[in-house]
Amino acid sequence: MACYVQKFGGTSVGNIERIQHVARLISETVSKGHQVVVVLSAMSGETDRLTKMAKDLTPDPHGRELDVLLSSGERVTIALMAMTLQSLGINARSFTGRQVGIVTDGAHTKARVSRVDTERVLAALGEGVVPIVAGFQGINEASDVTTLGRGGSDLTAVVLAAALKADTCFIYTDVDGVYTADPNMVPTARRLEKISYEEMLELASLGAKVLQTRSVELAAKYQVPVEVLSSFQNGPGTRVVKEDADMEQVLVSGVTGDRNQAKVTVVGVPDQPGIAAKIFVAIAEAAINVDMIIQNVSQDSLTDISFTVPRGDLRAAMSLVRELAKEVGARTVEVNEEIAKVSLVGVGMRSHSGVAARMFAALSREGINIMMISTSEIKISCVVEEKYMELAVRSLHQEFGLETAPKTHADAVRNN
Amino acid sequence: MACYVQKFGGTSVGNIERIQHVARLISETVSKGHQVVVVLSAMSGETDRLTKMAKDLTPDPHGRELDVLLSSGERVTIALMAMTLQSLGINARSFTGRQVGIVTDGAHTKARVSRVDTERVLAALGEGVVPIVAGFQGINEASDVTTLGRGGSDLTAVVLAAALKADTCFIYTDVDGVYTADPNMVPTARRLEKISYEEMLELASLGAKVLQTRSVELAAKYQVPVEVLSSFQNGPGTRVVKEDADMEQVLVSGVTGDRNQAKVTVVGVPDQPGIAAKIFVAIAEAAINVDMIIQNVSQDSLTDISFTVPRGDLRAAMSLVRELAKEVGARTVEVNEEIAKVSLVGVGMRSHSGVAARMFAALSREGINIMMISTSEIKISCVVEEKYMELAVRSLHQEFGLETAPKTHADAVRNN
Repeated sequence: MACYVQKFGGTSVGNIERIQHVARLISETVSKGHQVVVVLSAMSGETDRLTKMAKDLTPDPHGRELDVLLSSGERVTIALMAMTLQSLGINARSFTGRQVGIVTDGAHTKARVSRVDTERVLAALGEGVVPIVAGFQGINEASDVTTLGRGGSDLTAVVLAAALKADTCFIYTDVDGVYTADPNMVPTARRLEKISYEEMLELASLGAKVLQTRSVELAAKYQVPVEVLSSFQNGPGTRVVKEDADMEQVLVSGVTGDRNQAKVTVVGVPDQPGIAAKIFVAIAEAAINVDMIIQNVSQDSLTDISFTVPRGDLRAAMSLVRELAKEVGARTVEVNEEIAKVSLVGVGMRSHSGVAARMFAALSREGINIMMISTSEIKISCVVEEKYMELAVRSLHQEFGLETAPKTHADAVRNN
Repeated sequence: MACYVQKFGGTSVGNIERIQHVARLISETVSKGHQVVVVLSAMSGETDRLTKMAKDLTPDPHGRELDVLLSSGERVTIALMAMTLQSLGINARSFTGRQVGIVTDGAHTKARVSRVDTERVLAALGEGVVPIVAGFQGINEASDVTTLGRGGSDLTAVVLAAALKADTCFIYTDVDGVYTADPNMVPTARRLEKISYEEMLELASLGAKVLQTRSVELAAKYQVPVEVLSSFQNGPGTRVVKEDADMEQVLVSGVTGDRNQAKVTVVGVPDQPGIAAKIFVAIAEAAINVDMIIQNVSQDSLTDISFTVPRGDLRAAMSLVRELAKEVGARTVEVNEEIAKVSLVGVGMRSHSGVAARMFAALSREGINIMMISTSEIKISCVVEEKYMELAVRSLHQEFGLETAPKTHADAVRNN
């Protein structure tokens, strides 16, 4: 008997028919004799509907009240799912965030889980009950409802899987796994059978919206085996697991394109120590996420500093930077919103050199100019003109042969 | 400084504009320096929407899960109202049923309040906070959400008003008070300035849907002054208060018509002791509410027993009664669904005789046949043919002069 956490996202429980379908999926697992804990999101569209009402009433709603508001959506789905499973003869019971023991800090709308009090859910499992848990929510020490931020239901699922030492945390969504590239951009993109936590983290933070970043961090920390799969079709998904020997054979696992980028250049900055620090400390204090930074070679004691920010933060960043530029005596500030970031991700890069060179050569062959570069141990990102993004992603997908499944060590063993 | 409970029903918070309007009503009271506790229902239509989803999934949803489902609606309105008041500069804070300390028994979907733990709400009031409370919900001793049945938000308001010893419990709704008759039926119907708890109870149980019956019982028990008024227009409503000398001057306070009635007659019952008991015990055990009962004069050792039930319970009652009729050797069972109950209510009846006689005479003058009669200390009800209901209500309204405000003792004093 295994213990599984099954998490279903908003589209998977988006209407009566989908709820009935998911109930059948759950009952199949239960009927095989496994312990199952179900985690649900709100019905798709519900969070947006509630958020819109709040914004219609006040431009800046209080976080505590937003949490009371937004946490109501999951209460609806857990109740509907529990009663549906009961009608199928399954001993299901709904659990709110409080009842399942998710205790968080006090940071409303983006609370961090501080502990999980599992007594009540363990007692339920001991009685043969299938707990149906409201994702996305917990309570703080003051016994007020908190929410875990967008995608927080993934976090609930992984946190519970870790606390219950579940065998696998299944994340059901509307796609059947993680792909080598966005299939809308690259028709030959291929579903990955497995991927390491580290790769998934890079992909998640690069904007592949399959799994929430913090939930991947947590899964990695507690070594929770995760599988991302579709609730709309049968078949396997993508397993997110510890890096293994097979993976290291693969140079590149995926390629992504991200247009949510804007480039800011402070032109003609006096080339003195401490000026870059002054700019980036101020931006960090405004909670704006700077991604890449480049400082050009100094000419005539003047230098140019470029950096990228998410487009949503551009206005806030600009008002800050314009002021700072004046202060430090820079010549002017330039903005380019028509850029995109193209990235390669793969744990194989750790042990193989030459990936960057192949990437630059491939882009060059297509006549694509590289504006900025950043690298990590398992990732290389290039900023290019936005209009070239799809072309860049497609040519890199081809360059690294991602359309065909790699011959891995395990394949070799299996084929013998 | 007074302490007020202000309760707003579903239509009063039915959309963004209504919520903003109610927020202004609350802020006016707060700005006068009063302590205010606000109780809210779900947005109108929300409970029906949620109930429909549940029924679409399973014909017989579990009460515990129905309560989790239905209690979500009030969480939405309290959060929206709290953030709206905050944007007006008022220190408001939402309270769920659990947070406001409404502890109930375990009877899901129709729980009874067993106690109110007021520490948290008292502490909030002490800090100058305006608590915005989710009506209709509480928690049981197992820490599961319970709901108080339809109209349960009225009960929450009265329970809190009693526990906090509030000066008045204001019930805001979409009508401006209690009328001498349904204005749709009687154009000359007049809003009552005040009414006694006992009269209100009779009217509530007779189907005047202004106030939930249990909340009136509780208000009477704890002598909570209640005022029913409109959130859609300014001006006073109807005060529901302890009976006073003024009221006794008034013979009849109101007249009601109720078509939700069906009459069942068991024909040719052997006139032996215990047979009526057998029938009504069985019906009571099936939780069917019998209203009036008549047993005709016995002929040839056979008697007819007639009684009324709500139309919704007729099918269940009939299947029971047909079986019982066979068992006791009755001749047949007859049903009449085309009846209505017309009632006069007024505490003045306690000290004045002749009301019944005037009622019967008035109906007789209109050629309306009386099929059944029942009386209480402050009420007389007659069952008539359904088609005569409006006519009966209008003629009784006129007979007892309800279209003009009565000269009361207080009026006499005021006019001197």
